[in-house]
Amino acid sequence: MAHIDLGVDETLLPGITGPLRFRPETAGPLNQLADVLLRGPSTLSRGERELIAAHVSGLNECTFCHNSHAAFAAAQLDEGMAVVTQVRTDLATAAISPKLRALLRIAEAVQKSGREVTPAHIEAARAEGATDVEIHDTVLIAAAFCMYNRYVDGLGTLAPEDPAAYAASAQHIVDHGYSVPRG
Amino acid sequence: MAHIDLGVDETLLPGITGPLRFRPETAGPLNQLADVLLRGPSTLSRGERELIAAHVSGLNECTFCHNSHAAFAAAQLDEGMAVVTQVRTDLATAAISPKLRALLRIAEAVQKSGREVTPAHIEAARAEGATDVEIHDTVLIAAAFCMYNRYVDGLGTLAPEDPAAYAASAQHIVDHGYSVPRG
Repeated sequence: MAHIDLGVDETLLPGITGPLRFRPETAGPLNQLADVLLRGPSTLSRGERELIAAHVSGLNECTFCHNSHAAFAAAQLDEGMAVVTQVRTDLATAAISPKLRALLRIAEAVQKSGREVTPAHIEAARAEGATDVEIHDTVLIAAAFCMYNRYVDGLGTLAPEDPAAYAASAQHIVDHGYSVPRG
Repeated sequence: MAHIDLGVDETLLPGITGPLRFRPETAGPLNQLADVLLRGPSTLSRGERELIAAHVSGLNECTFCHNSHAAFAAAQLDEGMAVVTQVRTDLATAAISPKLRALLRIAEAVQKSGREVTPAHIEAARAEGATDVEIHDTVLIAAAFCMYNRYVDGLGTLAPEDPAAYAASAQHIVDHGYSVPRG
């Protein structure tokens, strides 16, 4: 049960979906930000960007966001959930590109604090071919999930334990994005 | 100097203003979110909401955001910068309402992690008259500044040392809000 009365059945609208319904004024920009960052035009694939979101959410121990974005990443990466799990288990040996690994290391620093990002993190990403826009977007995706994770857990929302709940959401996000409510 | 080439003169566009100019696609929802949370219709005054933003930014040690939102709070609170400084120095004795003090304690928990917010935090705020929307907005303001702070510092942007720089921004924000660029 959430800390406040969201006016919804949380078993039907778990995690962030309850607060988004409760406060449509803030839901607008929150959903637009997710759409631009995770689905808008980018040289990073949608699966790669969802993987950054899932990894940061895992480090923040946000069960709902981690399970959601792990499912969204798996649905949009050729390697599926296997690579999502590898990143969570051992980033150093996960079967991903050297560029994505360097960007995930930037995201890990941002998760701790913006002040943890060093010129060495940036140079390592550049050496693997990362552009300034890719570095910018990685920093902002990681920062944004430090917000979404705190929003979801700070309000004490429900996180379903059944993986099937997240798989159903994944299909909706892949098809429609973040700004279209599930019917 | 920022970690990436923002294509701006950072002495004229310091802190978050450079990244907002660099990536207008994300600037839109980021500015809209700040406008809704800090300036939209609310039973919390604009000064009170800026005080929450300033306090979280101080805890995150984000110099640019802390100085900015401290100035924005001071410009919109009868007690001015004195009360902003009191909150930063000792929340327990600051000359603010018991409700705002309880909401700031929720914000402090969110700054650490969403999982730090307990039913006792919520009950304490309710006992001082806080509504569910006020609690929701406090959680989201605190969470959002955990994003803005990481965005600003994760990109290594410039934070002016001269307080006059922040006072000039304060006048613009008070008059026009977050979505109107300074001319």
